[in-house]
Amino acid sequence: MDDCHRYRVEPGSRPRLADLDPAEHEGATGKREAKARIEATGRRLRELQYLLYAENRRSLLVCLQALDAGGKDGTIRHVLGYMNPQGCRVHAFRVPNEEEAARDFLWRVHRRTPRRGEVAIFNRSHYEDVLVARVHGLVPKAVWSRRYAAINEFERLLHENGTHILKFFLHISKEEQLRRFRKRLEDPGRQWKISEADYEERRYWDDYQLAYEDALHHCSTAHAPWYVIPADHKWYRNLAVSQILLQTLEGLQLQLPPPRVDLEAIRRRYHRELADKDGRED
Amino acid sequence: MDDCHRYRVEPGSRPRLADLDPAEHEGATGKREAKARIEATGRRLRELQYLLYAENRRSLLVCLQALDAGGKDGTIRHVLGYMNPQGCRVHAFRVPNEEEAARDFLWRVHRRTPRRGEVAIFNRSHYEDVLVARVHGLVPKAVWSRRYAAINEFERLLHENGTHILKFFLHISKEEQLRRFRKRLEDPGRQWKISEADYEERRYWDDYQLAYEDALHHCSTAHAPWYVIPADHKWYRNLAVSQILLQTLEGLQLQLPPPRVDLEAIRRRYHRELADKDGRED
Repeated sequence: MDDCHRYRVEPGSRPRLADLDPAEHEGATGKREAKARIEATGRRLRELQYLLYAENRRSLLVCLQALDAGGKDGTIRHVLGYMNPQGCRVHAFRVPNEEEAARDFLWRVHRRTPRRGEVAIFNRSHYEDVLVARVHGLVPKAVWSRRYAAINEFERLLHENGTHILKFFLHISKEEQLRRFRKRLEDPGRQWKISEADYEERRYWDDYQLAYEDALHHCSTAHAPWYVIPADHKWYRNLAVSQILLQTLEGLQLQLPPPRVDLEAIRRRYHRELADKDGRED
Repeated sequence: MDDCHRYRVEPGSRPRLADLDPAEHEGATGKREAKARIEATGRRLRELQYLLYAENRRSLLVCLQALDAGGKDGTIRHVLGYMNPQGCRVHAFRVPNEEEAARDFLWRVHRRTPRRGEVAIFNRSHYEDVLVARVHGLVPKAVWSRRYAAINEFERLLHENGTHILKFFLHISKEEQLRRFRKRLEDPGRQWKISEADYEERRYWDDYQLAYEDALHHCSTAHAPWYVIPADHKWYRNLAVSQILLQTLEGLQLQLPPPRVDLEAIRRRYHRELADKDGRED
């Protein structure tokens, strides 16, 4: 787990998802210890987020993709929930609305990119336009196949403007998905959100795997890598994502900016004067 | 503290800030116990936020106002940080940019209001337009004095559309502000954000108190109450805000919506069938 970059898809390579075990939990000693480590990592992530904000030069964009019940919401809750909400925005991209559908596929995504100092989390992303759009034939192949290059150029533009991009595919098995669907069926707190479409989509499982493989192959770049996270075990998924976030942010060597004012002059000018005036300061 | 609605400004009344003790910490037994209670409240707030989201009928808008160093950021970090970032947005309103200044004062605020099921937190708000705008004469009295009515109508519109509004004025003393400024001066993690303007604004302290009193007087309504929170003690401020949030959300009697599908039919149709097909299900 300390070498969590092993889950990174090397640029140009083509992962076979069937060969990657979604139930892997290598090197981690167990759920309880993982939780403690995620908690400690979360506190450090918050400190690093503060430095990112203070530095005000760079930003972080986290894209989460998965099949239904893959754990996008849970990852946000358990890992990204450590971030200070001031300075961290989550955007869930659903079916495009009329305003969005009337533009190119990157328009709605571009306007949600993080500003300097900010963290943005995409719950689903522009990758839906080479996944669901492809699997369901929403656009012809001539259209979706050109999108990989558009995505790479777009992500390069963001990167060159100081945005660090991490893309996570939360990889679960077909059996684990069904297990989670069944749990939802028996959980009164979540029955309200069950839809038949969840089940219908399982018919396209293999098509989705292929579409993901192509997206991972074409769009894992040095400046915007994809990670395939074994996600059958929720605690391991959270641990892996938190460690990758941690190592990425530590790697930025974020620095507090220097004071903008002469602190000594401020001390002389205001604190003594005000202390005298108020008569209450020590 | 259990009757935290004592900090609510009764509609029509006119609080005198000089008579309200910013260092009050009535009924709370101390910092340590307060922290434990804030933590427990935070967990419950997260559950209630989930219900708000699931119900998808109403929303919550929290406006935070204070003089500099009054604790807006700290309140967000320590109280509102318990919210799930998916479904909770923080907007910091600074000096209006050119796009914003080219419209009426409510334009930029209106587009940030929460959607159904969402929590929005305003770090500063439309109230700046009857506070800083008044104190510094950015607009003539004829303009800012008409804004109270515009604000009340705007907030009524939101309320009638299902948005519950809580407005907190974090009330600190002039001495406490200076104490916090001094701490910042000696804190390497925060020296970068010190500006001389912070100190300059202290000259207008009394003007701000008066401007706040007028805003509290004109704009504390049954549907969008103002609360004056004693904020010299950070832990007490956090406790008070968290309890008011809790009581407000509990008062909404949020309910999970019923399932949208026939759960029994789903069980019959998919789970048995898939269990057979996959041959791995119990």
